[in-house]
Amino acid sequence: DVSFDPKEHQHLRYNPLRDSWVLVSAHRMKRPWAGQVERPPEEHIPRYDPNNPLCPGNKRANGEGNPDYDSTFVFENDFPALQPDAPDPGSEQDPLFQSKAARGVCKVMCFHPWSDVTLPLMKKEEVVKVIDKWAELVEELGTIYPWVQIFENKGAMMGCSNPHPHCQVWASNFLPNEPALSDRCQRAYYQKHGEPMLLQYAKREAEKKERVVVESSDWLAVVPYWATWPYQTLLLPRRHVLRMSDLTTEEREGLAAIMKRLLTKYDNLFEVSFPYSMGWHGAPTGPYLKEDNSHWQLHAHYYPPLLRSATVKKFMVGYEMLAQEQRDLTPEQAAEKLRNLPEEHYKTR
Amino acid sequence: DVSFDPKEHQHLRYNPLRDSWVLVSAHRMKRPWAGQVERPPEEHIPRYDPNNPLCPGNKRANGEGNPDYDSTFVFENDFPALQPDAPDPGSEQDPLFQSKAARGVCKVMCFHPWSDVTLPLMKKEEVVKVIDKWAELVEELGTIYPWVQIFENKGAMMGCSNPHPHCQVWASNFLPNEPALSDRCQRAYYQKHGEPMLLQYAKREAEKKERVVVESSDWLAVVPYWATWPYQTLLLPRRHVLRMSDLTTEEREGLAAIMKRLLTKYDNLFEVSFPYSMGWHGAPTGPYLKEDNSHWQLHAHYYPPLLRSATVKKFMVGYEMLAQEQRDLTPEQAAEKLRNLPEEHYKTR
Ligand SMILES: O=P(O)(O)O[C@H]1O[C@H](CO)[C@@H](O)[C@H](O)[C@H]1O
Ligand SMILES: O=P(O)(O)O[C@H]1O[C@H](CO)[C@@H](O)[C@H](O)[C@H]1O
Repeated sequence: DVSFDPKEHQHLRYNPLRDSWVLVSAHRMKRPWAGQVERPPEEHIPRYDPNNPLCPGNKRANGEGNPDYDSTFVFENDFPALQPDAPDPGSEQDPLFQSKAARGVCKVMCFHPWSDVTLPLMKKEEVVKVIDKWAELVEELGTIYPWVQIFENKGAMMGCSNPHPHCQVWASNFLPNEPALSDRCQRAYYQKHGEPMLLQYAKREAEKKERVVVESSDWLAVVPYWATWPYQTLLLPRRHVLRMSDLTTEEREGLAAIMKRLLTKYDNLFEVSFPYSMGWHGAPTGPYLKEDNSHWQLHAHYYPPLLRSATVKKFMVGYEMLAQEQRDLTPEQAAEKLRNLPEEHYKTR
Repeated sequence: DVSFDPKEHQHLRYNPLRDSWVLVSAHRMKRPWAGQVERPPEEHIPRYDPNNPLCPGNKRANGEGNPDYDSTFVFENDFPALQPDAPDPGSEQDPLFQSKAARGVCKVMCFHPWSDVTLPLMKKEEVVKVIDKWAELVEELGTIYPWVQIFENKGAMMGCSNPHPHCQVWASNFLPNEPALSDRCQRAYYQKHGEPMLLQYAKREAEKKERVVVESSDWLAVVPYWATWPYQTLLLPRRHVLRMSDLTTEEREGLAAIMKRLLTKYDNLFEVSFPYSMGWHGAPTGPYLKEDNSHWQLHAHYYPPLLRSATVKKFMVGYEMLAQEQRDLTPEQAAEKLRNLPEEHYKTR
């Protein structure tokens, strides 16, 4: 009998945050790739572009001018998917044709006045300002809205249409599918085990070490045991923290430092500005502020698409869309690769 | 007060097959697109390529030679994500680190000996042979495996690495996430309403007409009320049918005809060989063959990525991955566009 080797033998792993499974078939990495190759990210971006609507001093689509900002800068998305005042669709009673009102706001947040920097290349103090602004927005929009989604689409491959370093903040009058699912899973775990799931998880991963990418006294970044994207990571505080706005000054500084380390490793992996979508999940807000949310633990998900090189991504297509997510290297292999990369950025070396 | 207009006012719609919601923000189509543009699909594919491992008579990666096939041709995937004999990972008791054995087979099925045809350009009789082979594989693999996933990744944009017309069939010893969810939803609906969800749904859509793309006496293709991809469709029999293998000869002929009509419209939309991932869902097999599966209705999902043109796709990224799917035109707008397209293929006009 052959003994089990996760690098050679396909198996399923359970994602306790989404109550679902991922198929790990690491032996698939042996397959040669003859399919689509992506354009590598643009490397020469001017610091200031008079035609870029995100640069300081420039005009945006709606005719408004940006201030001459020198740190972060937040404005309303000119083409928002969520607006504060959409009328109610009314309720058809048919269970097969159900609709609901959706209201909210969509904001864009520039990280820096320069177009040619990214978070790992910014100074730690500059990243702290980004984190402070995130916390401020969660607090402010969270007074009304149950969910405030901070997310960054980085790179053209991830649908980002502007190279200026920025993220988005969409607040909604409903709890979207993903946080609703995560809320249910964390609550069930807490009820059963008496401790927040992700707090226990961080402790176990810090002991096991094999999936740790970077860690500090306050923070931990791991390739989760159930990662679906090749180099997916989960970034967690070590203390029980419900929301971004609850982070102490020290924790914010620690977060800036660990983000810089993690994102530098990402860029160093294929020596390219690493594309990803990332976002923060914390305890819901608005009406939920009055409820007990002890089952929640603040965390960020990073979902980067690249698999083999700067130009070959993982396609989440047929089997993944219709049946189940499948990955081509083990989370332990991915973590090891990232862990062993230098913490100095290839561009400043 | 403004009255609700789905084309102008964002709202949520419920997907009863997945128990989740989609955010419909059709006014977002007004936004100009400055982001990534895809390479259009290759238009000049040779009928026979001596280096293509899928062509008749050629050698594959494992050294085996293909027969000189003149219809469909099925072989084992040379780089399978599922193999029949992987050892069991054993069971760690920790709820945060759960794994399970995964076993199965992965087959590739060529639709036709020629590389320069696609389903809409094949003869109806040739498409019937594809359907017969699908039914045969569901029956054969379904004697052992609980789930047999037939899927087609069409176009390089959808991770397809070979232009020869083909699909894949992955059978597994487990019920994957998506069919497991769909099974739960259909079962709950059946228990509550006493009729299969998708049978009722097809009837209602056939009456309403506004989301119908093509229909015939046996089949119906609609842009579902809860579609997430811009031109997503759901293809359904009108009779209660559990599995592909239960289709009558007439229904198979009707299916070939409606597939050709639907896929011709897809190709005509942007006058390009339309990329998509598609797959069949029917009642589970293997041990489930002995159970009552009356809540199930056979159906196919088509998930095409293109949004604005042959080269601009919808990116399912940050907000979609972290919070909730969002779409930029209403399902009714998409259905109307498809419905009004000619049924003669632009290449043969
Ligand atoms: O097996 P293929 O066609 O080489 O691979 C393609 O389909 C698979 C199943 O959806 C995916 O896992 C791969 O990412 C994709 O490239
Ligand atoms: O708002 P943006 O950056 O123009 O748009 C991008 O992010 C959105 C939120 O994830 C997606 O819905 C779009 O498909 C994507 O292109």
